[in-house]
Amino acid sequence: MQIDLNADLGEGFGPYRMGEDEAMMDIVSSANVACGYHAGDPVIMDKTVRLALAKGIDVGAHVGFPDLLGFGRRQIQAEPLELAKYVLYQMGALAGIAKAAGATLTHMSFHGALGNMAAASYELAEPLVQAVADFDRDIIVSVSTNTQIERAADKLGMRVANTFLADRAYDDEGNLVSRKLEGAVIKDRVAVLERVTQLLEHGTVTTITGKRLKLAAQSILLHGDTAGAVELARTVRDAIEEAGGHIVPVSKLVSNQARH
Amino acid sequence: MQIDLNADLGEGFGPYRMGEDEAMMDIVSSANVACGYHAGDPVIMDKTVRLALAKGIDVGAHVGFPDLLGFGRRQIQAEPLELAKYVLYQMGALAGIAKAAGATLTHMSFHGALGNMAAASYELAEPLVQAVADFDRDIIVSVSTNTQIERAADKLGMRVANTFLADRAYDDEGNLVSRKLEGAVIKDRVAVLERVTQLLEHGTVTTITGKRLKLAAQSILLHGDTAGAVELARTVRDAIEEAGGHIVPVSKLVSNQARH
Amino acid sequence: MQIDLNADLGEGFGPYRMGEDEAMMDIVSSANVACGYHAGDPVIMDKTVRLALAKGIDVGAHVGFPDLLGFGRRQIQAEPLELAKYVLYQMGALAGIAKAAGATLTHMSFHGALGNMAAASYELAEPLVQAVADFDRDIIVSVSTNTQIERAADKLGMRVANTFLADRAYDDEGNLVSRKLEGAVIKDRVAVLERVTQLLEHGTVTTITGKRLKLAAQSILLHGDTAGAVELARTVRDAIEEAGGHIVPVSKLVSNQARH
Amino acid sequence: MQIDLNADLGEGFGPYRMGEDEAMMDIVSSANVACGYHAGDPVIMDKTVRLALAKGIDVGAHVGFPDLLGFGRRQIQAEPLELAKYVLYQMGALAGIAKAAGATLTHMSFHGALGNMAAASYELAEPLVQAVADFDRDIIVSVSTNTQIERAADKLGMRVANTFLADRAYDDEGNLVSRKLEGAVIKDRVAVLERVTQLLEHGTVTTITGKRLKLAAQSILLHGDTAGAVELARTVRDAIEEAGGHIVPVSKLVSNQARH
Repeated sequence: MQIDLNADLGEGFGPYRMGEDEAMMDIVSSANVACGYHAGDPVIMDKTVRLALAKGIDVGAHVGFPDLLGFGRRQIQAEPLELAKYVLYQMGALAGIAKAAGATLTHMSFHGALGNMAAASYELAEPLVQAVADFDRDIIVSVSTNTQIERAADKLGMRVANTFLADRAYDDEGNLVSRKLEGAVIKDRVAVLERVTQLLEHGTVTTITGKRLKLAAQSILLHGDTAGAVELARTVRDAIEEAGGHIVPVSKLVSNQARH
Repeated sequence: MQIDLNADLGEGFGPYRMGEDEAMMDIVSSANVACGYHAGDPVIMDKTVRLALAKGIDVGAHVGFPDLLGFGRRQIQAEPLELAKYVLYQMGALAGIAKAAGATLTHMSFHGALGNMAAASYELAEPLVQAVADFDRDIIVSVSTNTQIERAADKLGMRVANTFLADRAYDDEGNLVSRKLEGAVIKDRVAVLERVTQLLEHGTVTTITGKRLKLAAQSILLHGDTAGAVELARTVRDAIEEAGGHIVPVSKLVSNQARH
Repeated sequence: MQIDLNADLGEGFGPYRMGEDEAMMDIVSSANVACGYHAGDPVIMDKTVRLALAKGIDVGAHVGFPDLLGFGRRQIQAEPLELAKYVLYQMGALAGIAKAAGATLTHMSFHGALGNMAAASYELAEPLVQAVADFDRDIIVSVSTNTQIERAADKLGMRVANTFLADRAYDDEGNLVSRKLEGAVIKDRVAVLERVTQLLEHGTVTTITGKRLKLAAQSILLHGDTAGAVELARTVRDAIEEAGGHIVPVSKLVSNQARH
Repeated sequence: MQIDLNADLGEGFGPYRMGEDEAMMDIVSSANVACGYHAGDPVIMDKTVRLALAKGIDVGAHVGFPDLLGFGRRQIQAEPLELAKYVLYQMGALAGIAKAAGATLTHMSFHGALGNMAAASYELAEPLVQAVADFDRDIIVSVSTNTQIERAADKLGMRVANTFLADRAYDDEGNLVSRKLEGAVIKDRVAVLERVTQLLEHGTVTTITGKRLKLAAQSILLHGDTAGAVELARTVRDAIEEAGGHIVPVSKLVSNQARH
């Protein structure tokens, strides 16, 4: 019973801080590092990578729209082929900083609105995942279940890590319920923990309609943006370990035979 | 008698164009590509790298200050160790785009005010060149003669390509004469050509005081920002070839035994 | 028979130039000046405003998305109330520079994707035009015929200048035909001139289906992005004047009794 | 015995927050609002202005270098006349947002490295203050004692508010002691309060060498970047009021007869 815990880190910019990175790095086994487009800058990226190295956790690229003002959460209707170059730019920049620090990128994920758009559109997902493949076929694509990103990764022979969002409701098809709908976000601490335990023990999630759905997740996404979130993340980790589970970096979990 | 011809390319941004890149790529043997800080963006970087690949010329990173508004020509008093991370970010970003296109970075140079500051200050030059070394010890550092950048590269065991500026006056120590001084820029076409020929045939430059100075240059920097500049660049190339010289990419010229 | 000729100007950034501003300022009677978000910077804004003052033409704000990389041509799904603040920011910035130069803003228009989105959505158009009204009720809103922007301006009691695009086809409802459709852009020089003359003499446009439609336009938008465009603009002006028309700044044309 | 208390506010950006703005607005009588160059964005500017209006405190522009990454704390060697346009741009942008909210700018100050550079160089200070004068001669220039900015304001007939920094040591000429020197920053709470009381009661400051120097200050700068800072600010305000002093917005304090 092994699982990866990951979090979005390095989301500050210049003098601005966001999230409790140091605390989170004691909890997670892989870090998704912002690459300077929706958040992050070279100094913060370097600091985050070196901290991850020191803690022995995986370093991945968290790529987004070039929109610091909107934190990458606003859709920008750019050409897929142009966005593919933005993905390469960000992954390369982080890889450069990581290389100088002695680290290698193991995985990547799409942030915010870019992630939502790619999840919903194969036409966008394919060129973006192709860019990842062109950069490095060994990179694992971290992604929610059931998205066009996963479909594109499968088609292109790239490895995928399915990420479970413990505090988000799923529908009967395994999609995340939109935040706009009632019940989409699970705020009750105990409920969140139960969902994690159920995933680990039975590989299932109870959907918003009450059905039990199989969900093959290799990773759980944790939040660290508030003190309360860090505490919850810590509790999730403890619950997993108490249940006999092992927290393992994503690169150790996903078969290192690329599908290609 | 071999020499590299290089030019600063990919200096547009979004809808903006600068310089005659396509024409210059038929003339030079290595391209210094802007990396999105003082100029350039992922789409232009990709286009420039692919064009260079198609022409068989070397691709290098031209790194500068994060100051698009000032085109990297204004000094910014940032911490050397922070600037070192900016260098890594830019080199990594270009390397990522190059890797996806099937190219490898062969060299790098510092742009504008960052270059001037590093040329004058060992305290700044060392951490910047160290960043290059940390990124990839095989990268050639392109640099004017007699600068603190060269000193740092020597100290750190990095290979250097000395670049000759055919249209700039040198003083008796082999330094460029400041643009603010009379006679610093040589505008006469014939004089420029004579300087190139003298360099190639005798390995010397006539300084602003009239002395002949030994100058070991492996590369000549050409400008392509105006139609007239492109024409001059073409004439320089022709003159070299008519004199029996060979235009060779910088990576073929600088001994590939790193000094380390 | 009076009409305003306007053009989008000041669209450079830092070292980058776009369009033939000086030439266009001899042709048009009002300038739509970029405000630093999709194009333009304080130095260019100042230069453009002073040139307009010297030529005696109207100065207006051309406001867009904060997306220099995409030149404001990409839709960004931001909150209308946030975009309203972006409009204020840009108009204020230009008004500040204009005030220091001794000029006052007479009009404004929405650029690129922001203009397209507001033209199509009353929900977006109203808060944006409300921002203009909150800033200065005397500002004229320049806008294509038949859009939600005009509807919002009417509702809020703001004066409107309807702009005719001489090189774009209109449908039978007076809307611009989408650029994606065949025949949307009229490239034939003579056809463009005929359309201008027809507008001036009969106040009509021949739609893409061949119908004659009444079109009450106070202004004609001219392009200056290429040498050819400037030449065409010059021809349009000459044709108007030869037909006995007068070129008059928009603020002299639109009744200065605000509708409120 | 009247004095203004001011603070630098609205220094967040997009999703990032900085400082305890709401708490500080209950303490100070004038707000220096960041204008989107070194910090701040249109939405935050609007929110800050409206909050200031609601509290009945003065709104001023805090203008800086276009360097969000460095928070305006890094010197940028730009042309004074270009920087003057940056000042106009920022003041205009804030004035536009303020106008729409029903507020008028009363004062301005220079932030960070721009302030330091202008304080030290009359050649820079004059064009910057000239820009303020060109924008609005009624704006009060807030400034530390004894700087080139004050000299320029005097020369140009602009009103000045001298600002006292209660937690910074002064030398015998009335200049701030450089932060790099021992004793430059006064961290002891009681000492800070004593300095405030001495200024109010005697109009003097005890310099770093122990001399008592006359200091004509109309305003005291308070910090709100940490919870501790807010608490100290509150204590300063209480101490002034207990000593019978009155906290009055800067525009009420500085004679509204401009010197011109």
